[in-house]
Amino acid sequence: MRTSIATVSLSGSLTEKLTAASRAGFDGVEIFENDLLASPLTPEEIRVRCADLGLTIDLYQPMRDIEAVPEDEFGRNLCRARHKFELMRRLGADTVLVCSSVSPLAVDDDALAAGQLSQLADLAQEFGIRVAYEALAWGRHVSTYDHAWHIVETADHPALGTCLDSFHILSRGSDPKGIEDIPGEKVFFLQLADAPLLAMDVLQWSRHHRCFPGQGGFDVAGLVRHVLRTGYAGPLSLEVFNDVFRQAEAGPTAVDAHRSLLVLQETVGMAGLPAPVVPTGVAFAELVTADAEPVTDVLGALGFARTARHRSKPVDLWQQGDARILINTGPAAQPHARLRSSGGTPVDGTGLAAIGLESPDPAGAARRAEALLAPVLPRRRAPEDAPLDAVAAPDGTELFFCATGRPELPSWRADFENTENTENTVDSADITTDSGVTRIDHLALVQPWHHFDEATLFHRSVLGLSAQESVDVADPYGLLRSRAVTSADGDVRIALSVGAGPADDTVHAQHIAFATHDVVSAARRFREAGGLLLTMPANYYDDLAARFAFAEGELEAYRELGILYDRDAYGEFRHCYTRTVGRVFFELVQRDGGYRGYGAANAPVRLAAQHIARRLTGG
Amino acid sequence: MRTSIATVSLSGSLTEKLTAASRAGFDGVEIFENDLLASPLTPEEIRVRCADLGLTIDLYQPMRDIEAVPEDEFGRNLCRARHKFELMRRLGADTVLVCSSVSPLAVDDDALAAGQLSQLADLAQEFGIRVAYEALAWGRHVSTYDHAWHIVETADHPALGTCLDSFHILSRGSDPKGIEDIPGEKVFFLQLADAPLLAMDVLQWSRHHRCFPGQGGFDVAGLVRHVLRTGYAGPLSLEVFNDVFRQAEAGPTAVDAHRSLLVLQETVGMAGLPAPVVPTGVAFAELVTADAEPVTDVLGALGFARTARHRSKPVDLWQQGDARILINTGPAAQPHARLRSSGGTPVDGTGLAAIGLESPDPAGAARRAEALLAPVLPRRRAPEDAPLDAVAAPDGTELFFCATGRPELPSWRADFENTENTENTVDSADITTDSGVTRIDHLALVQPWHHFDEATLFHRSVLGLSAQESVDVADPYGLLRSRAVTSADGDVRIALSVGAGPADDTVHAQHIAFATHDVVSAARRFREAGGLLLTMPANYYDDLAARFAFAEGELEAYRELGILYDRDAYGEFRHCYTRTVGRVFFELVQRDGGYRGYGAANAPVRLAAQHIARRLTGG
Repeated sequence: MRTSIATVSLSGSLTEKLTAASRAGFDGVEIFENDLLASPLTPEEIRVRCADLGLTIDLYQPMRDIEAVPEDEFGRNLCRARHKFELMRRLGADTVLVCSSVSPLAVDDDALAAGQLSQLADLAQEFGIRVAYEALAWGRHVSTYDHAWHIVETADHPALGTCLDSFHILSRGSDPKGIEDIPGEKVFFLQLADAPLLAMDVLQWSRHHRCFPGQGGFDVAGLVRHVLRTGYAGPLSLEVFNDVFRQAEAGPTAVDAHRSLLVLQETVGMAGLPAPVVPTGVAFAELVTADAEPVTDVLGALGFARTARHRSKPVDLWQQGDARILINTGPAAQPHARLRSSGGTPVDGTGLAAIGLESPDPAGAARRAEALLAPVLPRRRAPEDAPLDAVAAPDGTELFFCATGRPELPSWRADFENTENTENTVDSADITTDSGVTRIDHLALVQPWHHFDEATLFHRSVLGLSAQESVDVADPYGLLRSRAVTSADGDVRIALSVGAGPADDTVHAQHIAFATHDVVSAARRFREAGGLLLTMPANYYDDLAARFAFAEGELEAYRELGILYDRDAYGEFRHCYTRTVGRVFFELVQRDGGYRGYGAANAPVRLAAQHIARRLTGG
Repeated sequence: MRTSIATVSLSGSLTEKLTAASRAGFDGVEIFENDLLASPLTPEEIRVRCADLGLTIDLYQPMRDIEAVPEDEFGRNLCRARHKFELMRRLGADTVLVCSSVSPLAVDDDALAAGQLSQLADLAQEFGIRVAYEALAWGRHVSTYDHAWHIVETADHPALGTCLDSFHILSRGSDPKGIEDIPGEKVFFLQLADAPLLAMDVLQWSRHHRCFPGQGGFDVAGLVRHVLRTGYAGPLSLEVFNDVFRQAEAGPTAVDAHRSLLVLQETVGMAGLPAPVVPTGVAFAELVTADAEPVTDVLGALGFARTARHRSKPVDLWQQGDARILINTGPAAQPHARLRSSGGTPVDGTGLAAIGLESPDPAGAARRAEALLAPVLPRRRAPEDAPLDAVAAPDGTELFFCATGRPELPSWRADFENTENTENTVDSADITTDSGVTRIDHLALVQPWHHFDEATLFHRSVLGLSAQESVDVADPYGLLRSRAVTSADGDVRIALSVGAGPADDTVHAQHIAFATHDVVSAARRFREAGGLLLTMPANYYDDLAARFAFAEGELEAYRELGILYDRDAYGEFRHCYTRTVGRVFFELVQRDGGYRGYGAANAPVRLAAQHIARRLTGG
């Protein structure tokens, strides 16, 4: 279907909004009146600009407080409408949105409303304009879509139809099934927005907390299915008022917006996207660093060994069990690191640059990613390298779709030459000891401010991962939001988080969590090898003692090593942290009995400990 | 009364929170458990730290999900409580907050709740501890203060009392009058928070949107009066969960918090603050600049003349009617500019540094400001200057309390020597022509991010001004909040505003609005004198034509000159803007027939025009 977006959904000047919508692949726009008023362009120039950008103007909006008012007031309203219809003619817009009245002058009289809307439609018709009447959820007398439709039906005017808005319908809990009773040709327009399920005043909810479909809690797809059954043939158009989007750069927001409509169309069976290819594991994580020693010291103490080196580039493979870390000391290519550096913080020091995901079909995974607007990276980084499918995530992290050890497919591993440390069987788990690292349990990626919902939708839709519940975590200097996306079997787990503000991402560094069967032994071995564990406050352990019963000596070991403990309905979780190197740190985790979380309950204590450690080391 | 604050109300580490509370003048603190858990200090060390800082530990909190549960669960709860009582003994805290249960295990049985709380109080008594039982607004079975009191009364245990929390009581719309039926000695604690009147889920409201008394919409003072009538003798304690305060620096937040309690005590008749001295006019506005020419060119074109020069410093007085602008090209003393430079933007260029307010009693005004924790500035800036009372506002602006032309009091004007331009009668309005500037209509001060409510409370309480309604204004790159504080007769009007984010305060510059009787002539004269007016888009005027009927030629004049138009129930407002110089710009306003606002409806168009102008000039 054709896709459209209201200019109010994007930030910046009208020109910036139009450019962003066009670049993101939208077919059309709704022109929000205030954006036009504030623009130095004439309506004619806006029309030309849209045409140049390949955008149709699908709607001009909003026209307010028109109907069901005393006659003299309605006369003034018609005069106002005439001005706007003249403007729309200059703009080349043929549909106007009329919202149900919130005026104190409006009376509860459907016949009067229908009569006046019919007169308005007469006037509109002279200008070749259609009037789409919409029920605002907080309309004075008309606040439900069926009521608005009843009035339109009563008026029975060819230039008068209804506009359906998923926010106004779903926020009131209306049953969207009744939409199917409206003839599709009378559905003049369809505006889409999702929203988190908040118990709050619907006007506030609407003005500040709308989001793109799939980023909130509404069943927007269900609603769209009902609309499609009416025979509606207009565009799917996003109208999202969101305080965050207002501040964010328009370009990435438009891409995020358009991706949401692609996914929505797939969900309702209207789009032919390449099928999702869910990754089956983490092949590697790649760290870039100017100075490898601090981070390889930590990996060495954790039991990793350098097992291979890239044939042509300064990239080492460090391995333990099935956990593989690439250490890249070259001029790391990070063409998509734009977002990573938001907040003005320069990107420096050691950081996580890329993730290799084991994929049953790397080329298919890349095709889907590209169809969902992910920037595709060159297949070969150097002419001699094996070809690898890769895309950039919204935070700039490079995602490689890998086939490790499958002879029929090119492997990243073929670019690496074993060192003397390496056995021929290096890809199996025989380096592992009982207390060793077996695999990467999860990757924790801090998202740029403003891009949290975008990141979640990206990982869900592009990679086919499932999103868990979002949790709030108190940091001493703000509030973090965290949400994990995982494969069904938990072999791929990525924890996305976002800070409360644009600053201070030093502490909120990325991290890599390594799985072990025995975190106490692993932590002890790490310390004996000279590794520094993050120190946890004694008060935390006193609290654990109050909350849980532990076996003899267990709590003492945790206290000694800085191990944190959590429990959910499925099992137990024990974890501890290394010190931060540059912008990355490591976690050792022992996950028992099906525990599903990531120790969020312990995060405030861990974050406070990291602030303290940073202060002590001046880092 | 003694004052206290919950550590959760401030940001940072526990140590930072305690230091901030002490410096702001609080007598005590509530220790929030999570702050203790995350602290590397032992309970004993926290106790010593508090003592060193002169803080008592008034409350340890919270203890959750204790009462009205099955017997085996209650056994575990008592075990947990014993741990915490031991901790409180080490901490030296003698009162614990127990919140009404939200546990799914809790049953609706007041007798069981009373019996178990009584057992808890028995245990507490062994440790010399008192239990303060509080109804959470979202408690499972106990959610109102009278219900909690009923259970406490039933238990009838000397170590069990109730804790009253203004948020939990007022957010539910409970009538606080019933508080007076509780004997004061059974009110073990009183927690205070205000909140904006939001229609939203009460848990979300509580966790994210509490604010300090006087900054929200609750009648906190009314509630406190009821509590005082019980004979309650404990502290007034602030417990505020607020996403903004979590991110803000603890020091200024603590000062803001303590000021709110001083004002609250004055309101309920418990504190002897010096009476407010409401300013009666604006004596001058002082601009600092390294290069005076760009700004004096603008002032000259506006009709201002340089009428006097400071005897010893590079400060000129520019005047027209009763509008006086000081242009300071010296090394401007801005010792309190901390907040002004938040967001990392260096304070440079031309900016508004000080405001002179005409005061009926300058010394009295300064005494009140000092009592309300405003930093007092040296009375003389140089030994030869006339002594002047001055304080710093939260945004760093210096406020001088002046007595212009009153021989019995020292005058700032005495430090200035007239230039040849000046008549002897310079302080009268004889420079004014019909189209000239008569006075300063208002000053618009952009507040640092996070400090908007603080600024409003400061100007209301310190200066005795009244706050008007807060309005949201859409900027192309975010959402601004704006609120005016004024004297009753409108002779002093200060419009406070705050941006949506920490960045981009170049456009959101301070501005000075000059009153004129005829804005069209004034604007024309300004332009003829070479002044540049901010250009407004043609679309804006087309919209005005649709909305209002104008006299012949009126709209054309507005369109030509960039004059904006607004109307309210009381009158009309016409206004236009100069280009921005450094961090300041000027507005010409014509206020007719009692119009009360500031043209907020036009602000989005003006802000968009300023973004465009800035881009064109590369500024």
